[in-house]
Amino acid sequence: MKSLIAAKGLSENEIRLVFQKATEFKKLWKGWRGTEFPHQSLKGKTVVNLFFEPSTRTLSSFELATRRLGGHSLNFSPENSSTSKGETLFDTARNLQAMDPDLLVLRHASAGAPYLLSKEIQIPIINAGDGFHEHPTQALLDAYTIEEAKGKIAGLHVLIVGDIAHSRVARSNIYILKTLGAKITVCGPPSLIPPAIEKLGVQVSYDLKAAIKTADIVMMLRIQLERQHQVQFPSLGEYSKFWGLNSDTVQYLKEGAIIMHPGPLNEGVEISQEVASGPYSVILNQVTNGVLIRMALLDLILKGTTK
Amino acid sequence: MKSLIAAKGLSENEIRLVFQKATEFKKLWKGWRGTEFPHQSLKGKTVVNLFFEPSTRTLSSFELATRRLGGHSLNFSPENSSTSKGETLFDTARNLQAMDPDLLVLRHASAGAPYLLSKEIQIPIINAGDGFHEHPTQALLDAYTIEEAKGKIAGLHVLIVGDIAHSRVARSNIYILKTLGAKITVCGPPSLIPPAIEKLGVQVSYDLKAAIKTADIVMMLRIQLERQHQVQFPSLGEYSKFWGLNSDTVQYLKEGAIIMHPGPLNEGVEISQEVASGPYSVILNQVTNGVLIRMALLDLILKGTTK
Amino acid sequence: MKSLIAAKGLSENEIRLVFQKATEFKKLWKGWRGTEFPHQSLKGKTVVNLFFEPSTRTLSSFELATRRLGGHSLNFSPENSSTSKGETLFDTARNLQAMDPDLLVLRHASAGAPYLLSKEIQIPIINAGDGFHEHPTQALLDAYTIEEAKGKIAGLHVLIVGDIAHSRVARSNIYILKTLGAKITVCGPPSLIPPAIEKLGVQVSYDLKAAIKTADIVMMLRIQLERQHQVQFPSLGEYSKFWGLNSDTVQYLKEGAIIMHPGPLNEGVEISQEVASGPYSVILNQVTNGVLIRMALLDLILKGTTK
Repeated sequence: MKSLIAAKGLSENEIRLVFQKATEFKKLWKGWRGTEFPHQSLKGKTVVNLFFEPSTRTLSSFELATRRLGGHSLNFSPENSSTSKGETLFDTARNLQAMDPDLLVLRHASAGAPYLLSKEIQIPIINAGDGFHEHPTQALLDAYTIEEAKGKIAGLHVLIVGDIAHSRVARSNIYILKTLGAKITVCGPPSLIPPAIEKLGVQVSYDLKAAIKTADIVMMLRIQLERQHQVQFPSLGEYSKFWGLNSDTVQYLKEGAIIMHPGPLNEGVEISQEVASGPYSVILNQVTNGVLIRMALLDLILKGTTK
Repeated sequence: MKSLIAAKGLSENEIRLVFQKATEFKKLWKGWRGTEFPHQSLKGKTVVNLFFEPSTRTLSSFELATRRLGGHSLNFSPENSSTSKGETLFDTARNLQAMDPDLLVLRHASAGAPYLLSKEIQIPIINAGDGFHEHPTQALLDAYTIEEAKGKIAGLHVLIVGDIAHSRVARSNIYILKTLGAKITVCGPPSLIPPAIEKLGVQVSYDLKAAIKTADIVMMLRIQLERQHQVQFPSLGEYSKFWGLNSDTVQYLKEGAIIMHPGPLNEGVEISQEVASGPYSVILNQVTNGVLIRMALLDLILKGTTK
Repeated sequence: MKSLIAAKGLSENEIRLVFQKATEFKKLWKGWRGTEFPHQSLKGKTVVNLFFEPSTRTLSSFELATRRLGGHSLNFSPENSSTSKGETLFDTARNLQAMDPDLLVLRHASAGAPYLLSKEIQIPIINAGDGFHEHPTQALLDAYTIEEAKGKIAGLHVLIVGDIAHSRVARSNIYILKTLGAKITVCGPPSLIPPAIEKLGVQVSYDLKAAIKTADIVMMLRIQLERQHQVQFPSLGEYSKFWGLNSDTVQYLKEGAIIMHPGPLNEGVEISQEVASGPYSVILNQVTNGVLIRMALLDLILKGTTK
C-alpha cells in the first residue's frame, strides 16, 4: 500500500489486511500497561496533517494514532484560505514535501484534491475527506465496527439514512461494504438522493419505517447544518420527524440490529440522545476503532518506506 | 485523588500533599541539567486539554507540566462553538473518552461543567476554570506562592481586590485560603461584591486604602474587559483611580506585604506596570509555581491509574 | 552566539559557522535511516514559538528543526491581539520566561520587537520576522542556497525584485549578501523603492528586463496582497506585467542564473507557475535548507547553555 486516496478500488484483500493489523493493535493496546506502546513502527517519522477544512475529531484520531506508534504529528492549517484554492494546495504541498516529512494526511473541500496531489508529490497521502467525494478511513472504521459487532459483513443489510447526495461518508461506505458483500439501501428525502445512485448497486427507499424493519445496520448521516444555506428540506423539525431516529422510529428496529453515526451528532435532528446512547448503538465503538484503523493504515503505508 | 473539580471541599491534608509534591519537583528541576527530567511518571500517558474558552497561558502551563513528566498533550478546541453548548460538551467528551486518553483538563464557560462531566465519563478531570464558579489549580498555585514567600498561611491577612462577583479565582482562593487558616477581606466597588459573600467567612471592605494597611497579601483580580458589555462601573479610569494598585496606593502597603495577580495583567487598569514589577510583587513566582503545581496534580492523579 | 535578532551586524565568520553546521546536518540527514536523528542536542529543551503574526510555513520549519534535534516546541499565539501590543508582548514574554523554556522564536508586526525584548528577558531569542525590519533566518537560508547552487557568493550579482520598501526579507538579504561580498541591485516600481536605499550599498534599477540580463541570482519578493489597502501600484495585472517573472521576462535570464522566492507564491502575480517550477528555480531548495539553517541556529545557540 502506497497511499489511500479512495475507498473505490480497494480490493477485499487490501481491506482485510487493514482489519487484521487493526485487530493486532487492539489486542496489544488492551494488554498494555507500560510506558511505551510495544509497536513503535513510526519512530523518527513525521506525519503532516494538512487540514484545509477544520475537523478536530478526525485530526485528534490521526494525532493519537501517530503518537501511539511513536511518530510525530505536524499540524498545518493553511492561513490564506482566501487565496485561490488550487494554487495554495499545490504550493503548500510542494513546500511541505521539501521539508521531507514521511506522510501527508489531507482534508480538503474540493473533491479530487488528494488524487491531484498524489500526481504532484512523491510522499504517501491519506485522504481524510475531500468535498462530497470520499472519506475512506471513515468507511474502513465503519466496516470494521460492523464486522466486530455482527461477526461478518457479507449478506448483511445496511441502511444508510440522510443526505446521501452530499455525503462522502455514504459514498465511501457504499464502495467498501459492497466489496465485502453487504446489501445496501439508501434512504432519505428525494431531494437528497442523487438521481443515478442505483448504478452503485444500492437500493433506494423513501420510507424510513419500512426500510428499517429489514436492516441489520442503520447508519445515520450527519446533517451538515453549516451547508444548509441552500435548504434542501423544509425545516429541521420536519427533517427530524420523517428521517430522524428517535424512540418512536427505533421501535421498528430488527432484533440484533445496530445503529451507527460518523459524528459529531446533531442530537435531536438526525438522531435523539436516547437512541445514540442506547444498547444497540455502536457509535463510540466507531470512535475507538477509528484510532486503530488509522494506526493500521499508517503502519502499513510507512512500513516499506526507505527513510 | 481521582479528579480535581473544585477547591471547595479539599481538605488541608490534600492541599499539603499537592504542595509537598510541588516542592519535590521544584528541587528536582533546579538541580537538573540532563536531557530528561528524572521524574517521568507520565510516560506513555496522554493528557487532553479540552478548552472551550481560549487561554493560551493556562494551556501552556498544562502542556509544559505534562511534558516535563514525560507525557503527551492533545489539544482539543471544539470547532462548533455555535452549537448548543451542553450537547457539544457531552458528545465531545464521550468521543474523547472512546479514544482512551488518561486525563481530561477542561476549561468551559459554564459553571458546573466539569462536575456534570465527571458523572458522565470515567477518566479523571482537572477543572481549568468553569464560568464564574471555580479555578482550583490557580488557587492552589496562589496559596503555594504565599506560603513560599511568607513561610506560612495560617493567621495571615489576605486582601482580594476587584470584581469579586464574577471571579472564579477569588472564589477558589477563598476556599483554599480559609482551609489553610488565613483571614480574608474582599474589596471592590459595591456593584462587584456579591450580596451574601460574608457567608463564605470573609470580611468586606469598600475602602482600598484602609484595607491595604493591614494586609499581608494583596491579590489583585483581572478586570475582564471582554465581559464589560454590561458595565458595572462608570469607566476604566474611574475604576483604576479607586480600585487600582499604583505608585500612590502602594504607599499604604504594610512592610513585608506581597502583591499577586493571576494574569494576564491589564497594565494601568487594576495594576500599574511599576507595581507589577516592584520588589513586593510575586506575580512571576505565581507563573513558575503554576507549572509545578500542575505537575504535582497530574502526578498524584495519574499515579494510581492502571493504564 | 547568544541570540539572533538581526542580519545586520553578523560577521562573515558567524555566517560561515552557521553554514558549516547546516552542511553537517544536511549530510547526517541524507545518510540517516534509523529511528532517531543522530544529533540530539536539543533533548530535554523547550523552544517557544511566540507568533504574534501567523505564518504556518516559518512555524513548521522551526517545529521540524526543533524536533529533529530532539527538542520540544511550545506554540504560543497570543489571544488578546486587540489589547495594546507593547504591553502584551512584554507581559507575555515575562510570563513565558517564568515557565523556564530554553529559547524564544518571535514573530511580531512591530519592527524592533525582538530587540526590545532581548533587553527585558534573559533567554535567547531568534527573530522570525519583525514588521518591515528584518527576517534574518530567511536571509541566512537564502544565502546558503545561493552558495549551494553557485559554489560561491562573493562577486555574484544579485537582483532583488518587488516591494523593497516593505520587505524585511530584502533588508536582511542585503546585509548578509553584502557581508559575503555580493553585488546587489534592487528593482521595482519607484513607489516601492525606499528613497535612500543606495546608502545600504546597493544599486537601483527601474527596468527589470535590463537588470535581469546581468544577474546571477533573481530574487522575487512576495507582494503582500493583504497589506494593499493603501495601493502603491495601479493593479495586480499592471504589476505583474512590469515586475513579474514569466515566460516572457525569463528569456532575458543570463545562462546559469537562478531564481528564488521566499514563499508563499502569488502565482501569476510576481511569478508565473512555469517559472517557479522551471529548471533555474531553487525555490524548493530554499525550503529544504530553511529547516537545516534553523537546526544549525538552534544547535549553536543552545549548545553553550547551562540547563
